[in-house]
Amino acid sequence: MNSELIHRIVILGTGNVAVRLSLALKAAELEIVQVYGRNKAKAKTLADKLNSAYTDELNLINHSADLYILCISDDALEEVIKKISFKDAFLVHTSGTTRIEIFGEKHEHFGVFYPLQTFSESKEVNFKNIPFCIEASTKDDKSKLITLAKRVSDHVQSINSEQRKTLHIAAVFASNFTNYFYSIAADILKKEGLSFDLLKPLIQESAAKILSQNPENAQTGPARRGDHKIIAEHLKSLDTNKDYKDLYELISKLIKRKYLGQ
Amino acid sequence: MNSELIHRIVILGTGNVAVRLSLALKAAELEIVQVYGRNKAKAKTLADKLNSAYTDELNLINHSADLYILCISDDALEEVIKKISFKDAFLVHTSGTTRIEIFGEKHEHFGVFYPLQTFSESKEVNFKNIPFCIEASTKDDKSKLITLAKRVSDHVQSINSEQRKTLHIAAVFASNFTNYFYSIAADILKKEGLSFDLLKPLIQESAAKILSQNPENAQTGPARRGDHKIIAEHLKSLDTNKDYKDLYELISKLIKRKYLGQ
Repeated sequence: MNSELIHRIVILGTGNVAVRLSLALKAAELEIVQVYGRNKAKAKTLADKLNSAYTDELNLINHSADLYILCISDDALEEVIKKISFKDAFLVHTSGTTRIEIFGEKHEHFGVFYPLQTFSESKEVNFKNIPFCIEASTKDDKSKLITLAKRVSDHVQSINSEQRKTLHIAAVFASNFTNYFYSIAADILKKEGLSFDLLKPLIQESAAKILSQNPENAQTGPARRGDHKIIAEHLKSLDTNKDYKDLYELISKLIKRKYLGQ
Repeated sequence: MNSELIHRIVILGTGNVAVRLSLALKAAELEIVQVYGRNKAKAKTLADKLNSAYTDELNLINHSADLYILCISDDALEEVIKKISFKDAFLVHTSGTTRIEIFGEKHEHFGVFYPLQTFSESKEVNFKNIPFCIEASTKDDKSKLITLAKRVSDHVQSINSEQRKTLHIAAVFASNFTNYFYSIAADILKKEGLSFDLLKPLIQESAAKILSQNPENAQTGPARRGDHKIIAEHLKSLDTNKDYKDLYELISKLIKRKYLGQ
């Protein structure tokens, strides 16, 4: 049965997901046979790290791999999928939101291999804790993907397209939007000549708190306390930046309504 | 000179800051002589942990302490300060935003002792990393507060009222508002029967990223990539909750403008 396991993999894409995922797979002793990237230099850089071949032409993609992992933007998926037309290719994408149906009728073996995490080009991340959301065209294909994902993660789950989209939306709030708020905080401090380092222990603790209590109970701050005097002072200080002021006002209003019914 | 150090402390308040700060001071071998709280039961609970006396009456506050730390809501500060009128009391508050001038002309010794952190009633936190922002009425009082803060923290700073307010506003974005977004994420998942545990590694990593790169470079997600198809899908899914949809739309717009100039 060993011959049925996925071993030889082609990575399509050279972004953060492609880099981190392919390195994790290599570390788990999978073989990355080729990297495809529109940007040849970036494909070479990644391929060098993986000891793999690389190409910037879709029609030069190796036909003999067990799996083709598409780590490319959602907008580009449809076109790339169309162009990989050789028989029996097993394709997966790594998108949070794109439905499995995007693989269409031309392909027989396809699925989703979605690691629920934020990836940096330079920062390593521990894959063991990352939830992997798996979906596939057939039971057998799903089983293969689950086996593969378990090589790198202890949290592999079968998740359908609808649930995956919900997870992705929640992740946008919990990660992308919170990071944007970190950058607002950094910007506010910078304008007053204060170091962003001062906020780092607070940011770490705010994230750590939700490991031991639900975020509803973890809520603190002027809006949660209904401290209108402080909110008014903060809004006055934010007068010079309408975007920040509007955000502060809107979110404070929502927090007050949620907790205080005001 | 040892007699001039702060050693005997009265804590006013029984909220999260009062609990965490007083326990940290006790652990650093300061003596908490008394806890004041409007709620007598809560004052007793905290006092029991500190081996201290307690009272729910301001006129029964011990007159012999070296320092009175007011860990009470900004709205209540003015009134409590007025009522502590015995001579030579050295008063500090722990507020991020309230100016030092609130102590008025009746008091000679006063200051600010602001730990820049989010506190939970139940969760311990490592005080060593917490930035302490110190301000005082006289040089001598400031020196005493700095010495005290250094007993619990390695990050003690002299910060004026204006800078402290800026820090507090930045902290609201970086902590209170991000926690509110964690709770939105939890709510979105709950409605689909998905566990919030799935997001915990993502939340931890999103916070950890800003220790090694600035939040501007750490930004990822559909808005950062300008992935309009995904944004449109997410907004459609959020149709049932206008607040979440409006927030998603507004913040995505701001991220796109910041990074993509759109």
